[in-house]
Amino acid sequence: MSTIPVTDRTRVRRLPDRGAYDREVINSILDEGFLCHVGFVAEGAPVVIPTGYGRDGDILYIHGSAASRMLRSLQQGIEMCVTVTLVDGLVLARSAFHHSMNYRSVVAFGRATLVEDPAEKLRALTAISEQIVRGRWEDARKPTAQEMKATTVLALPLSEVSAKIRTGPPKDDEEDYALPIWAGVVPIKLEYKEPVADAKLAGGLAVPAYARRPKG
Amino acid sequence: MSTIPVTDRTRVRRLPDRGAYDREVINSILDEGFLCHVGFVAEGAPVVIPTGYGRDGDILYIHGSAASRMLRSLQQGIEMCVTVTLVDGLVLARSAFHHSMNYRSVVAFGRATLVEDPAEKLRALTAISEQIVRGRWEDARKPTAQEMKATTVLALPLSEVSAKIRTGPPKDDEEDYALPIWAGVVPIKLEYKEPVADAKLAGGLAVPAYARRPKG
Repeated sequence: MSTIPVTDRTRVRRLPDRGAYDREVINSILDEGFLCHVGFVAEGAPVVIPTGYGRDGDILYIHGSAASRMLRSLQQGIEMCVTVTLVDGLVLARSAFHHSMNYRSVVAFGRATLVEDPAEKLRALTAISEQIVRGRWEDARKPTAQEMKATTVLALPLSEVSAKIRTGPPKDDEEDYALPIWAGVVPIKLEYKEPVADAKLAGGLAVPAYARRPKG
Repeated sequence: MSTIPVTDRTRVRRLPDRGAYDREVINSILDEGFLCHVGFVAEGAPVVIPTGYGRDGDILYIHGSAASRMLRSLQQGIEMCVTVTLVDGLVLARSAFHHSMNYRSVVAFGRATLVEDPAEKLRALTAISEQIVRGRWEDARKPTAQEMKATTVLALPLSEVSAKIRTGPPKDDEEDYALPIWAGVVPIKLEYKEPVADAKLAGGLAVPAYARRPKG
């Protein structure tokens, strides 16, 4: 495992046992997700916006309209925070106090740069698309020069990043275990349902396999 | 419908058709979720942390350990942003450019206050618990005075808040509809799986109904 240097803001202080700083662990969480929450400061106040992302090596890419206020702010290289959260279960302890969730989250800090090199920009857009639906990029009609121009792509180096993980059963106080209260975990899973074809679909097109298994 | 006054930062600028400012719409999104991403500024930089929440009327409550850095910062009344995102589907357009997601998100801005009144604090903890597993609070062993003291609860008034919603099929460019590329929506749903009883469970306790249907 390659361990990422811990900084003051990536160190998991509360419940430090839940902290993880291994690149492989962090990557596995990022690769399972496709939605992140991006935090930035606008006029002195925090803003948190959900968006898709793609990981390519140690870089996290986000994209959007060139007109987006968030992207126009971030491409200035201001501080940002990207958080990816996978919820794995609800943890029902005997005591209300010890209720919890099982989850895996990644928090990355840093400053993004605008991706201007056309080859990297196309690679980044491919990574974002493949992160969400593996296999789709090959089939889709590729971006035109005009569409590329209308799209902003930002790169955040995954250098100041850590994970936080909770797994397993509830942890109750010793004296509570004998209480006649059910305790355990309710597993949670994000599920993909049967694809719904566009009403305007051209004739004779079958649902591609990747639409049933977007994560491959 | 009661419309919430729009401010400069709650106005949905990009794709304004997706903006919603009705209290009922916002509440319905908040009530379907249970996880939010909280943004705040620490030492000049944004931080985004996932946590559970509860809604009670026009107040959103979050809680955590009194030792939590996030809560200790927020209880000072600094600016915060709370975002709740429900992902409903992946939108596969014919063109890579028009790929999208169906989602419902709520973004709330403001300053939290520390909940000190014991009755409100207990009501807030109940709301958070019920938001995650409806029916659990009644069964769980209630907090002791010491546990209440170790728990910080913050209240954020839902006064500066808006929703953003995308639904429906892909929207392609007119000339792309004839392309031999499958297009449609892959629905996504958060599913609760069969509850897993704690290995240390006292004998004779059946899985309660709310563990199978946490949202009621």
